[in-house]
Amino acid sequence: MSPATLDGLGYGDLMRPTPSNPDVAAHGALDQAVLARASTATAMFSDLASNTHDGDGITRASYGDGEQYAHACMARYARAIGLEIASDAAGNTYATLPGSERSLAPIIIGSHLDSVAQGGNFDGAAGVVSGLVAAAALRDAGIQLRRDVRVMGIRAEESAWFGVSYIGSRSALGTLPDGALEHARRSDSGLTLSEHMLQCGADPSAISSTAPYLPPASLHAYLEVHIEQGPVLEASAIAVGIVTGIRANRRLPRARCVGEYSHCGGVPRSHRRDAAIAVARLVSQLDDWWDACEERDQDFAFTVGKLGTDPSWHAMTKIAGEVNFSLDMRSLDANLLDATEARLHSCVAALSTKYGVSFELGETTSAAPGVLAQGIRAGLQESAASLAIPTIEIASGASHDAAAFAAAGVPTAMLFIRNANGSHNPHEAMEITDFIDATRILALWLVNAE
Amino acid sequence: MSPATLDGLGYGDLMRPTPSNPDVAAHGALDQAVLARASTATAMFSDLASNTHDGDGITRASYGDGEQYAHACMARYARAIGLEIASDAAGNTYATLPGSERSLAPIIIGSHLDSVAQGGNFDGAAGVVSGLVAAAALRDAGIQLRRDVRVMGIRAEESAWFGVSYIGSRSALGTLPDGALEHARRSDSGLTLSEHMLQCGADPSAISSTAPYLPPASLHAYLEVHIEQGPVLEASAIAVGIVTGIRANRRLPRARCVGEYSHCGGVPRSHRRDAAIAVARLVSQLDDWWDACEERDQDFAFTVGKLGTDPSWHAMTKIAGEVNFSLDMRSLDANLLDATEARLHSCVAALSTKYGVSFELGETTSAAPGVLAQGIRAGLQESAASLAIPTIEIASGASHDAAAFAAAGVPTAMLFIRNANGSHNPHEAMEITDFIDATRILALWLVNAE
Repeated sequence: MSPATLDGLGYGDLMRPTPSNPDVAAHGALDQAVLARASTATAMFSDLASNTHDGDGITRASYGDGEQYAHACMARYARAIGLEIASDAAGNTYATLPGSERSLAPIIIGSHLDSVAQGGNFDGAAGVVSGLVAAAALRDAGIQLRRDVRVMGIRAEESAWFGVSYIGSRSALGTLPDGALEHARRSDSGLTLSEHMLQCGADPSAISSTAPYLPPASLHAYLEVHIEQGPVLEASAIAVGIVTGIRANRRLPRARCVGEYSHCGGVPRSHRRDAAIAVARLVSQLDDWWDACEERDQDFAFTVGKLGTDPSWHAMTKIAGEVNFSLDMRSLDANLLDATEARLHSCVAALSTKYGVSFELGETTSAAPGVLAQGIRAGLQESAASLAIPTIEIASGASHDAAAFAAAGVPTAMLFIRNANGSHNPHEAMEITDFIDATRILALWLVNAE
Repeated sequence: MSPATLDGLGYGDLMRPTPSNPDVAAHGALDQAVLARASTATAMFSDLASNTHDGDGITRASYGDGEQYAHACMARYARAIGLEIASDAAGNTYATLPGSERSLAPIIIGSHLDSVAQGGNFDGAAGVVSGLVAAAALRDAGIQLRRDVRVMGIRAEESAWFGVSYIGSRSALGTLPDGALEHARRSDSGLTLSEHMLQCGADPSAISSTAPYLPPASLHAYLEVHIEQGPVLEASAIAVGIVTGIRANRRLPRARCVGEYSHCGGVPRSHRRDAAIAVARLVSQLDDWWDACEERDQDFAFTVGKLGTDPSWHAMTKIAGEVNFSLDMRSLDANLLDATEARLHSCVAALSTKYGVSFELGETTSAAPGVLAQGIRAGLQESAASLAIPTIEIASGASHDAAAFAAAGVPTAMLFIRNANGSHNPHEAMEITDFIDATRILALWLVNAE
């Protein structure tokens, strides 16, 4: 790093005990600069919230209007900070703070700018804002790193829209599954991923035909700051978590049980083909499986987020001839997911026979567990300690773009920010002071990561 | 009956062994007249089907366009037959064949003209057409009965629309539950029953403020012909069933389980409030209860016809914060329904605690079992035997307006017509020859019921 002219800047009581390291003064100036940029963060959060509010919560559909706005907003703030703006064929936005040796492998600080429908303002966006604030603070403090730091606003992380996760990051890394561009369709519009990309000015044909924009081997590290989507930090009264790993998942975005519509009173039980009872039994059996996993101390979770008879066909007095549902299964242990999938198939076979229904499970998508880099985790721990910010280690039950980078072989790590009320809902509540603490750790790590 | 001039009419081989009864010739002429009216039936069925088809099946919403058309169609055919047309404050249509002693209590031959959404053409309408054909045949054969025979086209039997059953028949009988006119809302439009009645030219205020149009004590009998909504007659290779009783029901048209939307990976199991799992457990527990009822040989059935997360809130990666569902429970034994309701409430209490959700079960409607008149059943049996039409006795698992008449104290009976593929779907399949057999029994019973 360039030592710059930091001697005159006061350091305050933010760091104690005062380290004897020679870089202390520069680090102190950087930390002050992060603190001074809190207003940039609140302004950008409030800009995003007021322009992507849907009446109930925040909606930034993948390759939709809200996400599009968020990318434009990111570019506007990044330009004001003095960063270089670029975008790739998938429409990901990059804001680069140039290093002194630009041929070195860059560090990516990224997260996604889309949200689920009626979601919250911080899920995803906080990581981008944190990267921009850290870059701004480095500028403000007059610190130039050797490597480029590229803040990446990632497209289409939320699988709710296309049934495929990590679309933006995997497009950039060259690991998007074959066929997704043409076959994945957005749940609200029915248009393909490729069609939506074109509407947003991206170039889907270039994603499959040209070399990846971010060849994994060309990257020094990937770091993602994200709100915690559960209550662990809140319950521990700790602002920042250092993530130990990211759960693998198996997902059935569009599963279906087909029975037969018929009159609910007139048909004897032996003749009924009731899709509602069959699906209820399946969900109960998966919940039994979860009980068994817990008894064996195996990490597991499953969710039926979408479930429903067809409103244009169903009636109180009709046996349900069709139930559509989604299924999301997660574990830190990919082998347990293999066993769960086998269990799912055996349950489905037995229920089909017993209830005279058929299950059409549809496509199964999967994501490998995200193995996070021990070296970066230790570096983050060291930065937090030197800033006297208490942290805990925490596993990520939720999926993140970080898992795509880790799976591609990029040294990857994550920080979680305390957040009340969970996420994927309008009630998520992140304190800006917690956000700034995570960003202070990030900024100091960037300097030390050199 | 008036013997009329029937001697010249041939009787054919439709009735053997030839009875020695002096009315044989008149009965034979009547039977021939019913057979000759098969074309009226097929014309009216085809008129109804082509004018109330929705693209997939038949939709005649209660107090909606399709039902409105069916009542106009009924009046048109009834006028052509020479019957007197009238309607009551609820918009039920009456087509009367005058008797020779009009002060005697009339016989009502009725069924409903509405259907579920994407339903079939015969469910309900067959009973009205059967009544019209029987009345036409009596006219054609020159037979005048002593009593009026009133064919009643009944409004709004299907509870799918307003969550309330037997609206037309109970309005006529003066037994519609308090508040239904103002509080029941149609599932598609959200408008109240009263508002929809007004749109159809009915007079809802008169229903509650004036004496019933059909005081139960003023009726001689109520008879309803209806397609069977199950496979029993089809499996028995029998065209007509004589109904022994109608199941009581308890219904929860709009039940709801409220949990909390949150991220499906981030939230530990102990903090989840998953409405999808809670409802799946409830449905499974009711299915266990059904198993137990079967083991004790108790008549029971339950159906969750409508089930669903909220499409504007749900996502594959969100824990379900809300599941809406309907519940229909039936038994010939009202005491078993009391026990089932108690069981439902204890399951709901335990699941609320276990899964951290709350259940809002909403209104429970109930219908008493329909106890059918032994005397009419015997009369129908006798008519069938004299026509050499084989019948079986059969309980009605489905609900019918007949249950409202029976509950009001009117001597009531029902005939079922064989029907393949169940009902409440577009695939119901009634053969016109089976329909005519049931109508032959009805017509002869009318003569004998004098």
